[in-house]
Amino acid sequence: MTKLAPVDVGPRVERLRSSMTGAGLDGLLVTSPMNIRWLTGFTGSHATVTVTADEVQLFTDSRYRDRAPAELDAAGSRATVVVSRNVGDGVRDALAGVGTIGAEADHLTWAQADTIRNDWFNAGWFSAGSSKSERRDADEVSGDGGEIVATQSLIAGLRASKDAAEIARIEAAAAIVDVALGSCAPLLATGPTERAFARQLEAAIRAEADDVAFDTIVASGPNAAIAHHRTGDRRIHHGEFVIVDVGALVDGYRSDMTRTFLVGTPNAEQRRHYDVVAHAQQAGVEAMAPGVATSDVDAAARAVIADAGWAEFFEHGTGHGVGLDIHELPRVASSVDDIYTEGTVATVEPGVYLPGQGGVRVEDTCVATEGGARRLTGFPKVLDPTAG
Amino acid sequence: MTKLAPVDVGPRVERLRSSMTGAGLDGLLVTSPMNIRWLTGFTGSHATVTVTADEVQLFTDSRYRDRAPAELDAAGSRATVVVSRNVGDGVRDALAGVGTIGAEADHLTWAQADTIRNDWFNAGWFSAGSSKSERRDADEVSGDGGEIVATQSLIAGLRASKDAAEIARIEAAAAIVDVALGSCAPLLATGPTERAFARQLEAAIRAEADDVAFDTIVASGPNAAIAHHRTGDRRIHHGEFVIVDVGALVDGYRSDMTRTFLVGTPNAEQRRHYDVVAHAQQAGVEAMAPGVATSDVDAAARAVIADAGWAEFFEHGTGHGVGLDIHELPRVASSVDDIYTEGTVATVEPGVYLPGQGGVRVEDTCVATEGGARRLTGFPKVLDPTAG
Repeated sequence: MTKLAPVDVGPRVERLRSSMTGAGLDGLLVTSPMNIRWLTGFTGSHATVTVTADEVQLFTDSRYRDRAPAELDAAGSRATVVVSRNVGDGVRDALAGVGTIGAEADHLTWAQADTIRNDWFNAGWFSAGSSKSERRDADEVSGDGGEIVATQSLIAGLRASKDAAEIARIEAAAAIVDVALGSCAPLLATGPTERAFARQLEAAIRAEADDVAFDTIVASGPNAAIAHHRTGDRRIHHGEFVIVDVGALVDGYRSDMTRTFLVGTPNAEQRRHYDVVAHAQQAGVEAMAPGVATSDVDAAARAVIADAGWAEFFEHGTGHGVGLDIHELPRVASSVDDIYTEGTVATVEPGVYLPGQGGVRVEDTCVATEGGARRLTGFPKVLDPTAG
Repeated sequence: MTKLAPVDVGPRVERLRSSMTGAGLDGLLVTSPMNIRWLTGFTGSHATVTVTADEVQLFTDSRYRDRAPAELDAAGSRATVVVSRNVGDGVRDALAGVGTIGAEADHLTWAQADTIRNDWFNAGWFSAGSSKSERRDADEVSGDGGEIVATQSLIAGLRASKDAAEIARIEAAAAIVDVALGSCAPLLATGPTERAFARQLEAAIRAEADDVAFDTIVASGPNAAIAHHRTGDRRIHHGEFVIVDVGALVDGYRSDMTRTFLVGTPNAEQRRHYDVVAHAQQAGVEAMAPGVATSDVDAAARAVIADAGWAEFFEHGTGHGVGLDIHELPRVASSVDDIYTEGTVATVEPGVYLPGQGGVRVEDTCVATEGGARRLTGFPKVLDPTAG
């Protein structure tokens, strides 16, 4: 693999501070490991980060004494590392006198939220989404740490738009899958079980990538019509659809691609079934661009399927963001109001699942850029990859 | 692999109801996927379970319409499956008129807790661990669902003691690792990188198991002295310690084992270093039995290391429960008051990490049974597995 240029997290702090200002926050308590990685470059499992107007501090334990500063330095973070047994004390000091402090309500558990309130701040704690009028008596909420409010998607929203180094990693992961799938595709002609095919594909990916991005889905025949099928011991036969949903992990970043194959010659219904989904997927990718609503991409893909009379057989959303997590923002669906921006990486993956007959899904991971979208996943959309 | 007898979750509901009664709960809302699996056999990612005195209901979405009843049936669960888009409505109905309802404060996020309060019950919501005196005005807390209180470790505590079918799965996972490690050990003599050795070992495990139980740790030379080392590109040399921490996954259950190897002849210090840890581990396993406090096992292992003058170089706890999760209850440490019961499966894994010199850790997964403990992990504790 070509050596990847390092990720530079440096500029992210100011993007975050700008969002914090917009949300009325003077400080932020970051507890999600993926958000901490994005903000500081720290890849360990145990840390808490505080962000204020003039400082970012990362609190962790002695196991990470050497690794944490090394990782932050390599990632271009200027955050201060504080190694301590008593994270609560450090966080309280870091946030003393800071007015309104956000905490990650999608990540903190109920029990953790209570620990922070009782043991760290000894102060009142507001329920998520509470309005000022719901707050408790003022004497209960005053404390060393000021007022703590629930935040949702503050960092997750910023993570949706990727920089060049992030896109390079997702693209590298995608390229590994393209090659691995090419090397394994001939096996499909031999009638392997779903599991055997998945294992060979995953082994080929792991030989080049850090890991697979998620458990590979291989769903054949009637299984392909079940949206949540798990790869099993069914043999893959000629003349039936097999859905392969697969990704790789490279330096923390993931790719996500689905292809549907059929070894042999499809009948007319299968041909139409496949073509409708492939056209829907193409329509979705063509609609994707910076400034466009994700619901418009969903609508573009869904319209093709509805025109074919199969609206009710496309039950899931059209896509999702991909990055440090395999599912992240934005959501690509009719009911949301997310907007693509320059650098947004997200899947376009319509599917039609006909009970008893089989299913087809086609998915690419794409980046919104330069007035359109570019596919990062590149395996050819051929129905029979074993055909000469 | 020998075919494993099915897990029977049937008896678990009554064990849970007994715990609920002890905790003063009339109903329970179960949201942790692993706890749901343990209670009902459902292996999907999206479900909510309600437990009352006379009924268990599993609410999920249409993706699991066929799979959920099939899995519950196969696992011996008599829970009712309810497929619905509006889980909140179903849960509210299921818990209508039930008095005190527990919810899993270690699993629900702050945001989820608030959704349940506002959208599902439209009622007051208590902070975790809140006392009666802290509750809000009565007119705020009354609702269709009664009073909701935070529970912690209610099901996790029950999961610590495994039945025969669970132990058989952990033992099967351990046996796969024993064989895989035996087949890969000769590679150590060739000076592989940590990553190359880990990959070959993981491939050998995945050929027989459902997956590895966690990312394999291979830490060689100075890396072996770092408690949180990640497997990297360093070459493993003769005459230095290499810690291999590895497990397999079989039908949802995990094994966990660590061996420390040294290719060639250890010097006198290395020999002593290894022997002290091996003796500490043996002392810990010998102290483990139903009715014993886990802190006593920790103390037994720690005493051997302290006698050698290395107390400060054994910084982590002595072990943890293993099962559906790689880390679960009980904790085996000085500061906790967990007790082994018949069937408790937990690791015993002392280690001594001498900065700059190297580290040694020896770990078995054991089951407390018949007045003692039985090792489920069986790879020989030989320092040089490549020696003829």
